[in-house]
Amino acid sequence: MRIVELTEESRKDILENLLKRSPNNYTEFEGRVNAIIEKVRSDRDEAVFSYTKQFDGADINASNVLVTEEEIKEAYEQVDQTLLEVIRKALVNIRKYHEKQRQQSWFTSEDGIILGQKVTALEKVGVYVPGGKAVYPSSVLMNVLPAKVAGVDRIIMCTPPGKDGKVYASTLVAAKEAGVDEIYKVGGAQAIAAMAFGTESIPKVDKIVGPGNIYVALAKKAVFGYVSIDSIAGPSEILVLADETANPRYVAADLLSQAEHDEMASAILITTSEELAKKVSDEIDGFVEELSRKEIIQKSLDNYGYILVASDLDEAIDAVNEIASEHMEIVTKDPFHVMTKIRNAGAIFIGEYSSEPLGDYFAGPNHVLPTNGTAKFFSALSVDDFIKKSSIISYSRDALEPVYKDIVKFAECEKLTAHANSIKVRFEK
Amino acid sequence: MRIVELTEESRKDILENLLKRSPNNYTEFEGRVNAIIEKVRSDRDEAVFSYTKQFDGADINASNVLVTEEEIKEAYEQVDQTLLEVIRKALVNIRKYHEKQRQQSWFTSEDGIILGQKVTALEKVGVYVPGGKAVYPSSVLMNVLPAKVAGVDRIIMCTPPGKDGKVYASTLVAAKEAGVDEIYKVGGAQAIAAMAFGTESIPKVDKIVGPGNIYVALAKKAVFGYVSIDSIAGPSEILVLADETANPRYVAADLLSQAEHDEMASAILITTSEELAKKVSDEIDGFVEELSRKEIIQKSLDNYGYILVASDLDEAIDAVNEIASEHMEIVTKDPFHVMTKIRNAGAIFIGEYSSEPLGDYFAGPNHVLPTNGTAKFFSALSVDDFIKKSSIISYSRDALEPVYKDIVKFAECEKLTAHANSIKVRFEK
Repeated sequence: MRIVELTEESRKDILENLLKRSPNNYTEFEGRVNAIIEKVRSDRDEAVFSYTKQFDGADINASNVLVTEEEIKEAYEQVDQTLLEVIRKALVNIRKYHEKQRQQSWFTSEDGIILGQKVTALEKVGVYVPGGKAVYPSSVLMNVLPAKVAGVDRIIMCTPPGKDGKVYASTLVAAKEAGVDEIYKVGGAQAIAAMAFGTESIPKVDKIVGPGNIYVALAKKAVFGYVSIDSIAGPSEILVLADETANPRYVAADLLSQAEHDEMASAILITTSEELAKKVSDEIDGFVEELSRKEIIQKSLDNYGYILVASDLDEAIDAVNEIASEHMEIVTKDPFHVMTKIRNAGAIFIGEYSSEPLGDYFAGPNHVLPTNGTAKFFSALSVDDFIKKSSIISYSRDALEPVYKDIVKFAECEKLTAHANSIKVRFEK
Repeated sequence: MRIVELTEESRKDILENLLKRSPNNYTEFEGRVNAIIEKVRSDRDEAVFSYTKQFDGADINASNVLVTEEEIKEAYEQVDQTLLEVIRKALVNIRKYHEKQRQQSWFTSEDGIILGQKVTALEKVGVYVPGGKAVYPSSVLMNVLPAKVAGVDRIIMCTPPGKDGKVYASTLVAAKEAGVDEIYKVGGAQAIAAMAFGTESIPKVDKIVGPGNIYVALAKKAVFGYVSIDSIAGPSEILVLADETANPRYVAADLLSQAEHDEMASAILITTSEELAKKVSDEIDGFVEELSRKEIIQKSLDNYGYILVASDLDEAIDAVNEIASEHMEIVTKDPFHVMTKIRNAGAIFIGEYSSEPLGDYFAGPNHVLPTNGTAKFFSALSVDDFIKKSSIISYSRDALEPVYKDIVKFAECEKLTAHANSIKVRFEK
């Protein structure tokens, strides 16, 4: 793995290289995606089923688009029983963590004035689950459980069928365990459009979440505003901040755990120790040979993998905050104090036993995290994503009277006389 | 004002009519907006200044784009001193309300496991303030103060200059009072692009908020993902839910206060009392004649104004939740109990002295609210918009050991062997 000195210039080059991976750059597919959306919006079910035939090769229609209880029962029989046990253990941890995120309605009251915020769960949410190359039941849990904990009334799921019209058993089992209400055998941009506008078979939802390929990502961006969406996910990332106290074998293994996701994934070590840099590089060479996804890993490391050597910890931390990685590990002396200086990261893993995959599957925090530097302004998927807040405002006559002239004045300065009138009318003789 | 019986069908027609106003429908301007964005992204300052010449007729360059202390001083001299006093009073209320929205970092700790969320303010925020037809210092306060309360380091503002290269005095004064750090004389899609990508003169920000015309709205949607944005605002709306106890004169005045905003604004009364319906309609006719923005009001009422008569309160409340209005007033018996059944509304004004303009200017809650039915999934602008949360995960060796095999199992089921490896390596002999 390449070892680079951390300088103003190398930092700039690396940031530019990383941002190339943004789904925002794939505007060449926008035309095709918009055409699919328009077609689904006008022809509804007919368009959805026709695209499903075209893209997934499956014969889906109004009578078989909804996964049946029978199919779910079959899935439970097919699924690896040990996996089912692990899913159930993970589910307990994920639910427990997300329950801590619940927000309360609140109000203040003084002298005839009540102000506050009323928290309400969204009514209908759609979760997209990709089919294709890899099946990730963990992703089902992470997308569904925050909505469930928030108190969403109805959670539907769309996922593409195979040619045989079936959905993966582990997806169905994870969905059922997490509490999905209905599962539809539809994928791609057509699924996003169906959930955004509704069809005869598929209900319109208030928010769409879940990962997907570039078509799904662009479709989500296109329907944003008609419905809400989670943030648009790019390829996965890990950034390890380590000093000379770190175990190079652990650091190497953790970097590889993200590199294996995808050729566009990024794995970066920033260290103050040149010795550690070399050892990690050697360990990586050793591991890569043994791993099943060797080719993906090699490409990802070549494209977006870096070992950066910083002259001191402050410089290293500056770079960490600039890169704003999806996953970030702190493997240094005093890691909790270092954490206080980390401003931008999706998830922060602290200490040498807090390996990133612990968070992917098990610990409880959500693995749907902001990528591509968006940790500067986005957060992990959470219960917050499935609630909204209504402002509460109530004044008594006695409370309004002493201030009503100020409000009238303000309205008149903005030349909004009907605004002024609505206050004045209440105090007319 | 038209009086319509509330039925399944009339509800459907009205909803369809209201949704026509969505900024999502103006895709015909997308090409022009995208061209402006691309030009600013590549040519930076040069493009920004050239568009400012073209669209605003002002000669702006690197030496005068930033509003000077001198210009702010002048603005303080020019501005209506009573307005300044009112701005200062409103500011106290707005700040106090938003301070209640602050969220804390939190963690749980048990047996070697620390989990939590670290709350961090965004670093740089850009506020857009429109020029043109109307000047709204209240809008400056509402957009800037939540960012300020959240603890954002640097708040910049962009607003279009007049032909003389000047910005409105009341905008400058409100910006200064609210705590804006820098003000740039740039407007339109070019301002949004400049804040999203940065130019020589204008810094790249993490999030862009603030209202604007259709070009601004589409530009914000286009840069979403590169930066965060607030929700895309459509025309203003009020929905009054009233029974026979309501004062028709107050209800009429409140409906008009939103109708005056814009020809696309919507004012709706839903009532269980046919008598009230008629009286409100009469009062409206009386008021309209006296109001300065009469023509706008008349068009807005003709296009998007309705008085709906419901057969009972439950039916009325269902329609309220379906329409999901930006502003909603409850003027009924037991208005607080009625509030408990309101699921979708940007802001809820309770009782007959809680007139909507009270919230626009003064009470404290934010007047930047979700429009066009998006109150089903979006909230008022708040401190939440200017923070993000990083997940915190830390396991000790003792905590990881009893569960590590479960995590390995889960990773192996998802065929991610490097994930499994990163856990296993910590327990190898």
